[in-house]
Amino acid sequence: MLPRGRPRALGAAALLLLLLLIGFFLFRGDLDYERPRPRGAAAFDGDPPADPGGHNGSDCILPRPRPPKCELLQVAIVCAGHNSSRDVITLVKSMLFYRKNPLHLHLVTDAVARNILETLFHTWMVPAVRISFYNADELKPQVSWIPNKHYSGLYGLMKLVLPSALPPDLARVIVLDTDVTFASNIAELWALFAHFSDKQVIGLVENQSDWYLGNLWRNHRPWPALGRGFNTGVILLRLDRLRQAGWEQMWKLTATRELLTLPATSLADQDIFNAIIKEHPWLVQPLPCVWNVQLSDHTLAERCYSEASDLKVIHWNSPKKLRVKNKHVESFRNLYLTFLEYDGNLLRRELFGCPRPPPPGAEQLQRALAQLDEEDACFEFRRQQLTVHRVHITFLPHKPPPPQPHDVTLVAQLSMDRVQMLEALCRHWPGPMSLALYLTDAEAQQFLRFVETSVVLSTRQDVAYHVVYREGPLYPINQLRNVALAQALTPYVFLSDIDFLPAYSLYDYLRASIKELELGSGRKAALVVPAFETLHYRFSFPSSKAELLALLDAGSLHTFRYHEWPRGHAPTDYARWREAQAPYHVQWAADYEPYVVVPRDCPRYDPRFAGFGWNKVAHVVELDAREYELLVLPEAFVIHLPHAPSLDISRFRSSPTYRDCLQALKDEFHQDLSRRYGAAALKYLTALQQPRGPT
Amino acid sequence: MLPRGRPRALGAAALLLLLLLIGFFLFRGDLDYERPRPRGAAAFDGDPPADPGGHNGSDCILPRPRPPKCELLQVAIVCAGHNSSRDVITLVKSMLFYRKNPLHLHLVTDAVARNILETLFHTWMVPAVRISFYNADELKPQVSWIPNKHYSGLYGLMKLVLPSALPPDLARVIVLDTDVTFASNIAELWALFAHFSDKQVIGLVENQSDWYLGNLWRNHRPWPALGRGFNTGVILLRLDRLRQAGWEQMWKLTATRELLTLPATSLADQDIFNAIIKEHPWLVQPLPCVWNVQLSDHTLAERCYSEASDLKVIHWNSPKKLRVKNKHVESFRNLYLTFLEYDGNLLRRELFGCPRPPPPGAEQLQRALAQLDEEDACFEFRRQQLTVHRVHITFLPHKPPPPQPHDVTLVAQLSMDRVQMLEALCRHWPGPMSLALYLTDAEAQQFLRFVETSVVLSTRQDVAYHVVYREGPLYPINQLRNVALAQALTPYVFLSDIDFLPAYSLYDYLRASIKELELGSGRKAALVVPAFETLHYRFSFPSSKAELLALLDAGSLHTFRYHEWPRGHAPTDYARWREAQAPYHVQWAADYEPYVVVPRDCPRYDPRFAGFGWNKVAHVVELDAREYELLVLPEAFVIHLPHAPSLDISRFRSSPTYRDCLQALKDEFHQDLSRRYGAAALKYLTALQQPRGPT
Repeated sequence: MLPRGRPRALGAAALLLLLLLIGFFLFRGDLDYERPRPRGAAAFDGDPPADPGGHNGSDCILPRPRPPKCELLQVAIVCAGHNSSRDVITLVKSMLFYRKNPLHLHLVTDAVARNILETLFHTWMVPAVRISFYNADELKPQVSWIPNKHYSGLYGLMKLVLPSALPPDLARVIVLDTDVTFASNIAELWALFAHFSDKQVIGLVENQSDWYLGNLWRNHRPWPALGRGFNTGVILLRLDRLRQAGWEQMWKLTATRELLTLPATSLADQDIFNAIIKEHPWLVQPLPCVWNVQLSDHTLAERCYSEASDLKVIHWNSPKKLRVKNKHVESFRNLYLTFLEYDGNLLRRELFGCPRPPPPGAEQLQRALAQLDEEDACFEFRRQQLTVHRVHITFLPHKPPPPQPHDVTLVAQLSMDRVQMLEALCRHWPGPMSLALYLTDAEAQQFLRFVETSVVLSTRQDVAYHVVYREGPLYPINQLRNVALAQALTPYVFLSDIDFLPAYSLYDYLRASIKELELGSGRKAALVVPAFETLHYRFSFPSSKAELLALLDAGSLHTFRYHEWPRGHAPTDYARWREAQAPYHVQWAADYEPYVVVPRDCPRYDPRFAGFGWNKVAHVVELDAREYELLVLPEAFVIHLPHAPSLDISRFRSSPTYRDCLQALKDEFHQDLSRRYGAAALKYLTALQQPRGPT
Repeated sequence: MLPRGRPRALGAAALLLLLLLIGFFLFRGDLDYERPRPRGAAAFDGDPPADPGGHNGSDCILPRPRPPKCELLQVAIVCAGHNSSRDVITLVKSMLFYRKNPLHLHLVTDAVARNILETLFHTWMVPAVRISFYNADELKPQVSWIPNKHYSGLYGLMKLVLPSALPPDLARVIVLDTDVTFASNIAELWALFAHFSDKQVIGLVENQSDWYLGNLWRNHRPWPALGRGFNTGVILLRLDRLRQAGWEQMWKLTATRELLTLPATSLADQDIFNAIIKEHPWLVQPLPCVWNVQLSDHTLAERCYSEASDLKVIHWNSPKKLRVKNKHVESFRNLYLTFLEYDGNLLRRELFGCPRPPPPGAEQLQRALAQLDEEDACFEFRRQQLTVHRVHITFLPHKPPPPQPHDVTLVAQLSMDRVQMLEALCRHWPGPMSLALYLTDAEAQQFLRFVETSVVLSTRQDVAYHVVYREGPLYPINQLRNVALAQALTPYVFLSDIDFLPAYSLYDYLRASIKELELGSGRKAALVVPAFETLHYRFSFPSSKAELLALLDAGSLHTFRYHEWPRGHAPTDYARWREAQAPYHVQWAADYEPYVVVPRDCPRYDPRFAGFGWNKVAHVVELDAREYELLVLPEAFVIHLPHAPSLDISRFRSSPTYRDCLQALKDEFHQDLSRRYGAAALKYLTALQQPRGPT
């Protein structure tokens, strides 16, 4: 049991004095900013104070404490919502960049963040990183009684309940705010646990503003704190001792008592931690200030470091974040941007020297990759098919549409060179969309800024953007489609492509058609949306089928790919469509690739088709093999806009092996079909026998 | 003088033995790979051996040697050609990322590398980095007599002459190969100078292959070396002592003697360094192997490191470079790719704590930036105009065209979304081109791969690609044009835009016209190339003026921007052009923006026009103000291909402040015109009085 309460207050005061003195001499004046820092102290360079029992001779220093090689380091982070999830990823990238130890991340998340981060880490496959999730919503009742004014909301307060929320056998943990960036190896921070005395349970850096001194403005009444108080953006917690000491009771008592005279917490958990420390100062181990360089409003952080090598952890603890005012903010910002735009795939590097069980699926993947034949002309295709792309679902804030029985989500995929299509698409499709974007980490930030500066896009919360990070030379078109499809939340999906603009009425019309055709009652059908194209770059979109037909007759519009590949859409029977008043059935034929509306649980796209060619055709074969009716809708249409060929297309169209590989992949696809559907699949093989040009 | 020659050979042998023994016990078995490494030795973690005179108590170690804070570290690199220049930049990025000290880089370069690197560092403006250049061509005679079979060619050998080539007052220098990547702070390497004994002059890491043991294959006869010999990818040189010791004579004698029996050096300078060390072993201070982890063919590097934190410098010393075989090559590759794609702008961060004179121009720039008003609606425009973009000229190998009196270079600029235009452009324009590309560091690598995989592009050595690195939200169109223009090497330039394809005959026709019109003899004229456009994405290019006129009559082609902004090209007088058989004069009119051929020394574009609008118009005003004749060529034409609006355009077209700013910039441009041309500029102001729509 830790000493507690009034009877030991005198001893505590003495200990505090001692701590303050040690702190002054060893921590380069951290606890007293006003005094000039002794020059020689700079030699400590952010290192912990020497153990008074050590052999601190004149020519040597104590070895820089390092945790045992390969020790598993424990880190806890509370994270809620779309924006914080993006922040956590940047924090984790900086941590992984410098780390040399295996890590176990304990993520306390709401449902949104869990969904995002679970997918992300599952697909990231970083060696020697283990992830555990904890349900923040279950912890809410423990802190929701505390009135709080801080921008972090309820989630900030959850750091208080970590000793009971984390596994009972977890003895030590580093707790981090989502807005910190590492500039050093986290093992050096972990090593500071070794300096805790028997009574110390919390390691904290002093607060780097005058907030707790209560002199920032008139009538400013902060929560009680020791001097400047401590900042809780970076915490070292001895969970074992906290549990023994009855931490839960302790903080609840303190909070309850202070809330008798104070209306609410201003800085969330930090106010309560400080009130406890004020009462029980022996609990705290002050940490060198460089482990939490705070860029808060009114920051005094410049007093903490004197050179770049001092900096260990930057804390963007202002609601202004990167726009905060500090003399060296440009340098800090560069560090932050470094990791924001850093290619996360590069962090998949093995932590050699520390054998750890590989991430789930990684071993299987390694085996499959090892079996590939590098001399195979289709090697790139096969490797691309096996590539597990890092996926960040709902990259931007997103509100799922309220459940409606006939609702339909537009599903598409794109890369950066088609981002300009989004505004027009939003104007044409007022319903929910699920879009997969194939981007680098840096492009994802460019995309974020693009959406934020677009009035059209930033006001739409029913469009979900799923970032699939680039890797490999081929555009993984069907993997992207599958990501977007898997994230659609309505019962129906419209499987479109990004270069098509739907008729303005299409969203309403599709929902009405779904209802009318009673697709909901188990009818297995694919509703075909006829596709057209314009070759004119400037183009006035038809507002009705009648107008569309007029443009068709005038030669301003064509049926899609009429000039190069009419087979792709011929079965839609455009002649019949002209006259049709009601939906009509059509039959599958070889190479048919219409745009369709199907129930969300439709077959997935075949990921073997990467790059360009046959990717949609194979999907429609699959629909037909599973006996989906094909029903053409008489009032539905989409129009393809012209564009220059994308880089991804042009790189492979000219490749001599490309066509050969595509043929090999098609053959393998048909073999798989026969295996799965037996004699019924024969018709697809027969259709294939007739030689044709490329799709 | 250093001890030399036979009489001291016995003493030398004893010293060598001692060195080997110390090396074995302290360098983790670096000098003897075969023996199992004692487990405890891992604690050295790449640190230098303890000074035997130090207080090496049981509970403490010697402080990790660090150079004094802010000490200027000296680094020398030999670099020649386009590809090595790209390598050096990646090396420098890795060095800058981890460095905390000011650096002085001594670059021994051929003319190509000097041109590239001088421009790069001048525009990079990294604080606390000084650059000096040394002419490699002048050093050639000193080493060209040595027959050499290594892939580095003559330039590898130049490391031998650094003691005389570098300034006489330079006492110590770290010498690096262009194919090394830092994974640590170079100051730790510099600190190893402190461990040199009085006699040691060269710090080297042992060679990590069996090459010098001579047992790799039958009849393999390497140069003489101590054991496995040393690798010269990373060298610590005591230049002062080498000069005193008569280094020049020493290496020349050794090389001459060995070349009596050996036909040539196989590994360039490294063979000669090893032969000298074999003869004078006391000269060498062996360095911990982690400072030069060699991924050569037959590498044994895996024996050097046991965990990731050991690695300090990776050396890609195989002609295969990244494709080398090593168990951990994926990790090393990731480190390399990290810096290859790292945004170099982020390395402009201030080295605070070490006040150094700012890079040339930086102070002036800071002042100008500080004077900008953040509340000014045109703030972004003004800041973009002041931005100094990092420029990497001739990013890819380039052979300047042989000088011809009437030759003309096509000048244009583009970003990644127009790279697909390059192949078509190459087919239409067989002459030299100077193209500025606005890219991120990562995109530059994507671009490199694009060119390398394109047969059309990779066979053209007369196309110079100049990478201008992205920074800021506006597309700096006129800054890009100025970069491309400044790098054109022919007497004339055709100032075009990337979306235009020239008539197949245009290059020949322009040269003939220049000759015929006697532009060379000081005639100040701009030859106008009439511009057309197609709105059709698929389009068959006319092979003659007659064919073009037929398409024009058929409505498949239009004069450029006929529908939106006819004023831009109206003065070209297309009606007259139809009939013209000879060049004809036209007069300037407001908003005229033709594509022109001018002498290379023409006025530069006004960099204040960033983003889109008025950027060419202002240039043509300037040509007219300087009294260039405007002569339309009767057989010349270019055709604009349709494309989706670029991201850069769409972001700002919708901006409400954009038009206001453009107007403000136009007004300021006209004020400047009046200042420079007085009353003559009045006509431009008058023309402006008539209100019109945007350009």
